[in-house]
Amino acid sequence: MKKRIIAVIGGGQASAREAKLAEEVGRELARNDVILVCGGLGGVMEAACRGAQSAGGVTIGILPGENRRAANPSVQIPIVTGIGYARNVAVVKSAQAVIAIGGSYGTLSEIGHALQSGIPVIGLNTWSLSRHGKEDKSIIPAQTSAEAVNIALDAAID
Amino acid sequence: MKKRIIAVIGGGQASAREAKLAEEVGRELARNDVILVCGGLGGVMEAACRGAQSAGGVTIGILPGENRRAANPSVQIPIVTGIGYARNVAVVKSAQAVIAIGGSYGTLSEIGHALQSGIPVIGLNTWSLSRHGKEDKSIIPAQTSAEAVNIALDAAID
Amino acid sequence: MKKRIIAVIGGGQASAREAKLAEEVGRELARNDVILVCGGLGGVMEAACRGAQSAGGVTIGILPGENRRAANPSVQIPIVTGIGYARNVAVVKSAQAVIAIGGSYGTLSEIGHALQSGIPVIGLNTWSLSRHGKEDKSIIPAQTSAEAVNIALDAAID
Amino acid sequence: MKKRIIAVIGGGQASAREAKLAEEVGRELARNDVILVCGGLGGVMEAACRGAQSAGGVTIGILPGENRRAANPSVQIPIVTGIGYARNVAVVKSAQAVIAIGGSYGTLSEIGHALQSGIPVIGLNTWSLSRHGKEDKSIIPAQTSAEAVNIALDAAID
Repeated sequence: MKKRIIAVIGGGQASAREAKLAEEVGRELARNDVILVCGGLGGVMEAACRGAQSAGGVTIGILPGENRRAANPSVQIPIVTGIGYARNVAVVKSAQAVIAIGGSYGTLSEIGHALQSGIPVIGLNTWSLSRHGKEDKSIIPAQTSAEAVNIALDAAID
Repeated sequence: MKKRIIAVIGGGQASAREAKLAEEVGRELARNDVILVCGGLGGVMEAACRGAQSAGGVTIGILPGENRRAANPSVQIPIVTGIGYARNVAVVKSAQAVIAIGGSYGTLSEIGHALQSGIPVIGLNTWSLSRHGKEDKSIIPAQTSAEAVNIALDAAID
Repeated sequence: MKKRIIAVIGGGQASAREAKLAEEVGRELARNDVILVCGGLGGVMEAACRGAQSAGGVTIGILPGENRRAANPSVQIPIVTGIGYARNVAVVKSAQAVIAIGGSYGTLSEIGHALQSGIPVIGLNTWSLSRHGKEDKSIIPAQTSAEAVNIALDAAID
Repeated sequence: MKKRIIAVIGGGQASAREAKLAEEVGRELARNDVILVCGGLGGVMEAACRGAQSAGGVTIGILPGENRRAANPSVQIPIVTGIGYARNVAVVKSAQAVIAIGGSYGTLSEIGHALQSGIPVIGLNTWSLSRHGKEDKSIIPAQTSAEAVNIALDAAID
């Protein structure tokens, strides 16, 4: 029986507010018996894993580098790819929905890969996009971590 | 002696206007003795290759799939990766500057990967970005194909 | 706390004997509280997952394609890479030791990637290698599934 | 019009004999108007590029890292993947035939990927393979660089 998996993406460095949001999202996912997948490093990724672990959840970190020891301490299952930022594709494709918290250009690339693959993206204080001068509303906005998780659970694809 | 390489990115389907821009950009790159790298498929990629080839330039297509025959007819050097959309990373990283023309979510992922890697991105009627409600001006806007190529040549990194 | 992870690699089609070996190996890994990682598809991969799952173990399938539904029914955690056979690299790098059962050229590529990364490879009726006419003994031979798992547990790297 | 492309694979460090063979192979490919693709680094790769360049040929290096400056001095067209050893897949898939000279485990992984993809592999003093105690004759042996190139030209797939 396949487990439900949701990704949390965001910067390798996080503001206090982003870290708090990520930790709450991780905890909420664990309470809903959803596996958390992320890029395995620091910042938003680490805060989300810490939250999930604190609530007894399972955490997966899909790492860019060559060594499992690079994973943050709350990653239980490190996936070592060695493919650098191309691992961003695997982070989002492994998820049935993606929650983006803050984030910089790496997060932007992940949002692009997710939307290209038809995977729903829920945004908490993250990028907003316009194309040809017209807003693109594909990123579903959320105001709180609980709302983000609820939307993600509803929108999750098979 | 390493050759100069600039990427053209954009949709696999192109409007007439985008195709015209892409073809002009390809031609202009060839006239400047710059190798064109792209994703190797249709739309903007094909138009850019056609333009470059018409001016005697060299064209490289970094393909997502398993077969060199998937390259558009103006790709002279097909690079067959078999890594799907993760090839977007290689398209931009192989370039010293990136010119984005129109484009959808795949192009957005490429813009993210390029900016994350410090590779300049010049935009012709493409995405615009905001973060935390504040415009991100990393994509350098151009109005014409000639202007885009001039900016790219100036901004190109080693 | 990171979990121990061992990979089982082998053909997408398995002989009856290979399937039996793989199922035993999967079961034995689960009894030792080791997570099984594999390529997520049929044959040896499926048999190993079935064995692990029957003993209450955790199974991860690192898939080449774009869809989690391609995973065999005993994969609990599908990692969707979309990078085709390049996912072979991630299968072996995510493991602290690799057990190869039978297998064809894809398995050979995984053995190459594992040995290149210094990850021990234990072989059950799989490839043997010579270089410049001289046998290469890097693949540690095992005669039974229990022996293969014991060697893998001993040889596993951090 | 797509150009013909043949890969030369082998160790990042080469013996004098391997370097001589690689340089001759590169030169011979160039004389036959074939583009040389390789992993872009030192040893066999560098010697092959040097040979090709000396005969006026085109050389492509598909690099594992993040920077074009890592290419050997005879690479004219560096493809920067950032995907580490997973770039081995792209090296062989971009070729219509593969010539292996010496080599270690990375070369072994490339031989595996090539044979899995149905791309002919010609061997000059490289790995030999057995499976289940029986020799696998998929690698076509050659004795001289000229013979290797002739076989590769004949065997090259579309």
